[in-house]
Amino acid sequence: MGKKIKIQPISVESFKPYGDILDCSGSPDKLINNNFCERYHDKALLDFQSGRAGISIFNATPRDLPYECNMLERHPDGSQAFIPMSENPFLIIVASNCVSEKPTNPLAFITNSGQGINIHKNIWHGVLTPLTHPGLFAVVDRIGPGKNLEEHYLENSLTVVLS
Amino acid sequence: MGKKIKIQPISVESFKPYGDILDCSGSPDKLINNNFCERYHDKALLDFQSGRAGISIFNATPRDLPYECNMLERHPDGSQAFIPMSENPFLIIVASNCVSEKPTNPLAFITNSGQGINIHKNIWHGVLTPLTHPGLFAVVDRIGPGKNLEEHYLENSLTVVLS
Repeated sequence: MGKKIKIQPISVESFKPYGDILDCSGSPDKLINNNFCERYHDKALLDFQSGRAGISIFNATPRDLPYECNMLERHPDGSQAFIPMSENPFLIIVASNCVSEKPTNPLAFITNSGQGINIHKNIWHGVLTPLTHPGLFAVVDRIGPGKNLEEHYLENSLTVVLS
Repeated sequence: MGKKIKIQPISVESFKPYGDILDCSGSPDKLINNNFCERYHDKALLDFQSGRAGISIFNATPRDLPYECNMLERHPDGSQAFIPMSENPFLIIVASNCVSEKPTNPLAFITNSGQGINIHKNIWHGVLTPLTHPGLFAVVDRIGPGKNLEEHYLENSLTVVLS
């Protein structure tokens, strides 16, 4: 068993250093379609180097808690948005890179139903971890040449717990 | 009551003239995250003129069947992808513009659970029509200057029926 980290609820403020929350909180920016539809406009900082935006579908195996995490990754060339194609909350692990280029101060968040997230370019994060079936997500990330992936295996794994 | 059109199930073949289906059918392009996740890569033809991709959230009021449709729209400057943030199928109305620039031969499709769609640039389509609560979608479309919207009010409205 590695270092324990408790899952915290996500908020705009707490998630700000790592990325954006994609949801319909607050007031809509625009009412469209004869007021039948609220538009919450341009919620994600999409940031791609030497590439372009694309939409891929990820089908991930749901995980159980406590969840053992031994690797964090980051994408130096682009942001990565995860949009759940279900109403299920999912787990997110992120870390800072204040000290050296290694991930430090890992945090675990759980989304609310109806929220996607966009992880900013070069931010350390865990792999996609749904907690419930189906683990189906639309992913908006960089399509382009090169590896765009850096992996860091943790000396001491993280054990992510609910409380 | 206008012209009746029956909803048909969506398929890659039938939807091809209008756009892309975003789902995890067929074989994954790549297994990632130690085989815990299937990646279906770059499924949408994103096509934006004088603008860039953005992610917005649409919260639409669910509609009932039969559904009366009296307007179709198109976006001359960009494609528009609709990703349901629920497992609910939703209704899509599209039309051709083979004759003049007016929408002709309207068709109605219903998605399967777990499918998003990407409507190609300048393709006539109805407004977002979920049939079930929540009508929550992530939308990947063009962010940029200008109106990027053309509306066509039908002389005879369409009545979309299940069978």
